[in-house]
Amino acid sequence: MHIVDIILKKRNGGELSAEEIDFFIKGYVSGELPDYQIAALLMAVWFRGMNTRETTDLTLAMTRSGDLVDLSAIHGIKVDKHSTGGVADTTTLVLAPLVAACGGRVAKMSGRGLGHTGGTLDKLESIPGFSVDQPMERFREIVNRVGLSVIGQTANLVPADKMLYSLRDVTGTVDNLSLIAGSIMSKKLAAGSDAIVLDVKTGSGAFMRERKDAEALARAMVDIGNGAGKKTVALVTDMNQPLGNAVGNALEVREALEILKGEHPGDLKEVALALASWMLILSGLAADETEARQALEEALSSGEGLKRFRALVEAQGGDGRVVDNPAGILPKARRVIPVKASADGYVSSMENAEIGMSALLLGAGRQSKTDVIDPAVGIWMKRRLGDRVKPGDVLAEFHVNDEKNLQEAMQRFTTAVKITPKTPEKNPLIYRVVE
Amino acid sequence: MHIVDIILKKRNGGELSAEEIDFFIKGYVSGELPDYQIAALLMAVWFRGMNTRETTDLTLAMTRSGDLVDLSAIHGIKVDKHSTGGVADTTTLVLAPLVAACGGRVAKMSGRGLGHTGGTLDKLESIPGFSVDQPMERFREIVNRVGLSVIGQTANLVPADKMLYSLRDVTGTVDNLSLIAGSIMSKKLAAGSDAIVLDVKTGSGAFMRERKDAEALARAMVDIGNGAGKKTVALVTDMNQPLGNAVGNALEVREALEILKGEHPGDLKEVALALASWMLILSGLAADETEARQALEEALSSGEGLKRFRALVEAQGGDGRVVDNPAGILPKARRVIPVKASADGYVSSMENAEIGMSALLLGAGRQSKTDVIDPAVGIWMKRRLGDRVKPGDVLAEFHVNDEKNLQEAMQRFTTAVKITPKTPEKNPLIYRVVE
Repeated sequence: MHIVDIILKKRNGGELSAEEIDFFIKGYVSGELPDYQIAALLMAVWFRGMNTRETTDLTLAMTRSGDLVDLSAIHGIKVDKHSTGGVADTTTLVLAPLVAACGGRVAKMSGRGLGHTGGTLDKLESIPGFSVDQPMERFREIVNRVGLSVIGQTANLVPADKMLYSLRDVTGTVDNLSLIAGSIMSKKLAAGSDAIVLDVKTGSGAFMRERKDAEALARAMVDIGNGAGKKTVALVTDMNQPLGNAVGNALEVREALEILKGEHPGDLKEVALALASWMLILSGLAADETEARQALEEALSSGEGLKRFRALVEAQGGDGRVVDNPAGILPKARRVIPVKASADGYVSSMENAEIGMSALLLGAGRQSKTDVIDPAVGIWMKRRLGDRVKPGDVLAEFHVNDEKNLQEAMQRFTTAVKITPKTPEKNPLIYRVVE
Repeated sequence: MHIVDIILKKRNGGELSAEEIDFFIKGYVSGELPDYQIAALLMAVWFRGMNTRETTDLTLAMTRSGDLVDLSAIHGIKVDKHSTGGVADTTTLVLAPLVAACGGRVAKMSGRGLGHTGGTLDKLESIPGFSVDQPMERFREIVNRVGLSVIGQTANLVPADKMLYSLRDVTGTVDNLSLIAGSIMSKKLAAGSDAIVLDVKTGSGAFMRERKDAEALARAMVDIGNGAGKKTVALVTDMNQPLGNAVGNALEVREALEILKGEHPGDLKEVALALASWMLILSGLAADETEARQALEEALSSGEGLKRFRALVEAQGGDGRVVDNPAGILPKARRVIPVKASADGYVSSMENAEIGMSALLLGAGRQSKTDVIDPAVGIWMKRRLGDRVKPGDVLAEFHVNDEKNLQEAMQRFTTAVKITPKTPEKNPLIYRVVE
């Protein structure tokens, strides 16, 4: 087998065999194939695409490139959840304790990565003492006992993805459906769960701004998951405004706790419950959405979800009192600055990625891998799309420590939130379920 | 300027500016831009193509990447000629002395490279003593005095082409019109002549098998040449059978000498005179093809062309007696083996590349850069397309030293030459002149 033949085959519109895909992934990871040949192949893939079979084979070849997490010591069906990323998108902190409370098993490995706020790992680490570095043995033990655990990815999880992503990033080949789907799903498959629920975001704060692109990505990932023998479902959900109110690490923990206490209705809760419902269905713990929803509401009202959250925090070395007294335990910013509306009308649109960027500028996220996150800072949204506002009304609170970028953050935020005389059309919260 | 932006622009179908093209060529040659980014860009160029302006700018940027040959010390208009390569295609040895005899100035730099026989350099080196390594000063002096000289390319002529070609070769991006045209024309432009006549071959022995591809390449190269301020013309000529009779290095010198002596009519002479005519026209030494042809026939019949050939050989250290006694001076193979027809009918087609491959197997060419050419060996064709043959008629003579690959060479040759009951349609020798 020769790599040039494989490049030419794809370039000329051919379908690569599982063996050919395996050959180039193995060769690249082992260092036998140079990056310039893989770069040319990736560009050919960008132009020609990959069909469902090729995409699944690519994902499986990537999955096999490193360690496979063995969750067999955990009893029951293990269910994982993944979001393609959004603003104020802290669904995991809400749904994982609830799913655990209903008998589900959530053994979650997360990556860090760049973004307007940290990922689930960073959010949990804002709780004093909480550690995401747990040995595999202990991870499995926590899931068996508490029903959930969240740890960092092992170093050798899907090295092919790390290498391919770095190469795509510098060769203009990031935005290809098969490569994106393969990147996400290879990590999910390697992480060892039996079922996977995907939350594919679309809108002004999502990687896939267009709904049709998000749906295509959802379809591709569900096909890969099912093709690899995992029960997989994707929800395509709205990201045209921050999903919750909190954009920031400790702030998002606070909001998740409020929801788990039943004090905080809204879109974040709705999406979390929808995803959790499908996690229960795929785990065989509920027959349909109605039954799942009932069980989840029960876990909320009984306080069992909150109990699981506390158990998780304590199992991973954190201060469990955060559940009773989040304001006292979580880090707090020095100043809370209101950002006010200057016009009269309706909140008609939000350039959501810019709201995320404002939070990042306050210190809530990472622009480069070496950036250090400030867990205390961020934005607490006070208004949602369609809300009526008058000049002087508070649109959001900025939680600030370092004021270096405050002015730019404010300016980007106020430019991002459009106020017009007419009320906007309302987007559905959940566009579609892809099974 | 960022290389990823340039990759994305081309990938998305944009037109690269002269500055962007210059940036990536300079960056690649200097080592600032890594090969994987250039590989991705080349693949994007393969898919999107380059328009005439981009192709010319690419060629000019490549030309500037190394030394530019200064021919200003040579009096008169310097005219160069390039063939895209064919079998028994020794036009340079015929036309350069004739053009010189008519007052033209042919300062020719050639490369070596792979192929079924050597290039012009290798052919001339089959003459005992002939050296293609002449200092630039001496090169210009010979051209001024004799009217022609042929030397090897300086080491630093268009390094961008060497680098890009090596990369294209291993990334499936060889067969793109702009990249092929840029590769050829950058070397012609750097070589410093004022006018360029191109011989673009098409048919079973050519890189461009299809006439339309050859015509497109001719168009692209003429546009580049004219865009760069050089008078440029291309002839699209037939390569569906060996152009001359001789396929091999010393054998081709012999055939060229026979033509210069007026003893050897045929297609090689016709194509050489057609190319030479355009060289005279572009040099301002003839008003049109009729006038040019007349001057060239005069140079043939007067023996002035032959005299120039001898002067060239002697100026570059070779044995001038080769002109009077080629058989005695040139290296000869140990055995001459006739290859005979086994069927009755007409020579209806030749898989010409396979005839070249047969000569290569006898030792006349190079498959890898380190192969050593045997100047004596090769094939002397005895029949042409359309000839009537009977079983036992000699189709060709194999001039053989090392018999290691003889059987394979014979077999490939006899498979390549098809004999059928019907006489084939005759192809034109010159399909088109592209000005």
